[in-house]
Amino acid sequence: MSGAAPPLFGRVALIGLGLIGASMAWAMRRDNVAREIAGYARSADTRAAAGRLGFLDTVCDSAADAARGADVVVLCVPVGAMEAVAAEIAPALSPGAIVTDVGSVKAAVIAAVAPHLPEGAAFVPAHPLAGTEQSGPEAGFATLFDNRWCILTPTPASPRRAVDKIADLWRRCGANVEEMTPQHHDLVLAVTSHTPHLIAYTMVGVADDMAQVTESEVIKYSAAGFRDFTRIAASDPTMWRDVFLTNREATLEILGRFTEELFALQRAIRMGDGEMLFDYFTRTRAIRRGILEAGQDTAAPDFGRARGLGDAVGGGGE
Amino acid sequence: MSGAAPPLFGRVALIGLGLIGASMAWAMRRDNVAREIAGYARSADTRAAAGRLGFLDTVCDSAADAARGADVVVLCVPVGAMEAVAAEIAPALSPGAIVTDVGSVKAAVIAAVAPHLPEGAAFVPAHPLAGTEQSGPEAGFATLFDNRWCILTPTPASPRRAVDKIADLWRRCGANVEEMTPQHHDLVLAVTSHTPHLIAYTMVGVADDMAQVTESEVIKYSAAGFRDFTRIAASDPTMWRDVFLTNREATLEILGRFTEELFALQRAIRMGDGEMLFDYFTRTRAIRRGILEAGQDTAAPDFGRARGLGDAVGGGGE
Repeated sequence: MSGAAPPLFGRVALIGLGLIGASMAWAMRRDNVAREIAGYARSADTRAAAGRLGFLDTVCDSAADAARGADVVVLCVPVGAMEAVAAEIAPALSPGAIVTDVGSVKAAVIAAVAPHLPEGAAFVPAHPLAGTEQSGPEAGFATLFDNRWCILTPTPASPRRAVDKIADLWRRCGANVEEMTPQHHDLVLAVTSHTPHLIAYTMVGVADDMAQVTESEVIKYSAAGFRDFTRIAASDPTMWRDVFLTNREATLEILGRFTEELFALQRAIRMGDGEMLFDYFTRTRAIRRGILEAGQDTAAPDFGRARGLGDAVGGGGE
Repeated sequence: MSGAAPPLFGRVALIGLGLIGASMAWAMRRDNVAREIAGYARSADTRAAAGRLGFLDTVCDSAADAARGADVVVLCVPVGAMEAVAAEIAPALSPGAIVTDVGSVKAAVIAAVAPHLPEGAAFVPAHPLAGTEQSGPEAGFATLFDNRWCILTPTPASPRRAVDKIADLWRRCGANVEEMTPQHHDLVLAVTSHTPHLIAYTMVGVADDMAQVTESEVIKYSAAGFRDFTRIAASDPTMWRDVFLTNREATLEILGRFTEELFALQRAIRMGDGEMLFDYFTRTRAIRRGILEAGQDTAAPDFGRARGLGDAVGGGGE
């Protein structure tokens, strides 16, 4: 990723300037991906923050203004807001413009966005698998997508040329690119993201509701494992509400399997079947090793918290 | 914690030299807590590693040899091995010796250990809430317990003088000390540690079993949230088998509440009740704030992975 590479695009418009939109802008600046980066956010505070932080060349007063004259329009809004934004920008799109998105659910976004786009505009659905538990324009940073995966889910109507351009855009932002069908994406993410988030939210909710254990005890003693769940359970509520409402079937399918497995382990505990528990807990170690070998997590104990984080040493393993 | 403080004890014996035993030895050396640190591990490889790593003054050939002449004997073995070790060291204990442990479950350990100890030996059950997903003597480090909590669960038979000495021991190792009943400890830990670990193991097991989603996909796309679960699901299988077998009632009670909550959220997804989901996901953010304010986790996005961990930027929030 050398800054010497020529701009890939003239004008890129970001609709939505939260963690992902802001990080895309910083990453595109880092590698000179666009001659002009324009952006719009519904909230005046967010637009003001974007101006202050300086990751945009042009802060626009409407989604249509941002989209007008853009070679690429990136929809970085919650999944539930995609349809309204698509309808609003459609009349302003230039012929040959490419529309893409960063939504965590693909089939529902395609159904919401594609019907609104004019002839001659190309739609390339995409999902960068990157983020933190923080949200808003201040949370963005240029390296967010480095060595992460961005999944493209082209439709039969997506021109290959447009798909390749969006793939280049993401590679220039530091990501690895993969293609799959929207349906397969939604199932894969139900396993690797949506169900884990719902389970974390649930565990934190249970702890919050305990009568015999005070919230201050839960907080004091959270380093014993619980605190890991609180991080993803601190993610943006609007985004996650929309994910579960729009990836309902796949999430419910994985939740069904999860409950089956949980009941099997619960039964082993009730019956005192130590062998079953031991075998199960041994098997699950292999996936962690695979993730470390694939460079998808840090091998530092406790996510590296134990290194030089005086306020957060240890925790997690006991 | 100044190294200038005089040794609190003559000889301290560590039975079990894994992550916790090794970290205790390093922490005691750091603050000159004992004049002599002796230790024993059942495995010859572990004893050899301890000798090589140099965190002990004396590597013994049996638990009884280690306990002989010790002012304090610390049982750092899995909960299921506590009874056999207690029976083995009992004849070797000096009058006035204090026996303590680091087990993650307290009522069951008290029931297993106390009956074997001779008159005149004091028993002070303890549980340091610290660890990482790694195990073995090589995984130990001196700062593991800094700013973590160690919970003491004295029995009616525990002399106050002995309880105070073990509290001092843990403070000198960097920990904060709290006292509660064994029963309350076991319920608190079922919420903050045992149930979260079982859920993480279950989620990783489900992903491992998926037919339509390959393991390589699960690994590639794990940064979207799943990888957080794989860390605690990589913890020591023997230790966790014993935890669930010995804290059965409290774990099953919390699992029951968890399943109730999960079904309520599952129903909201099925019914498309976005308001319920949004409210739930908003409420769970507060506990995370409390944990950060209490200094029990790092406020760095993504546990600080995003900072200078080139192999593990981003992930978790989407």
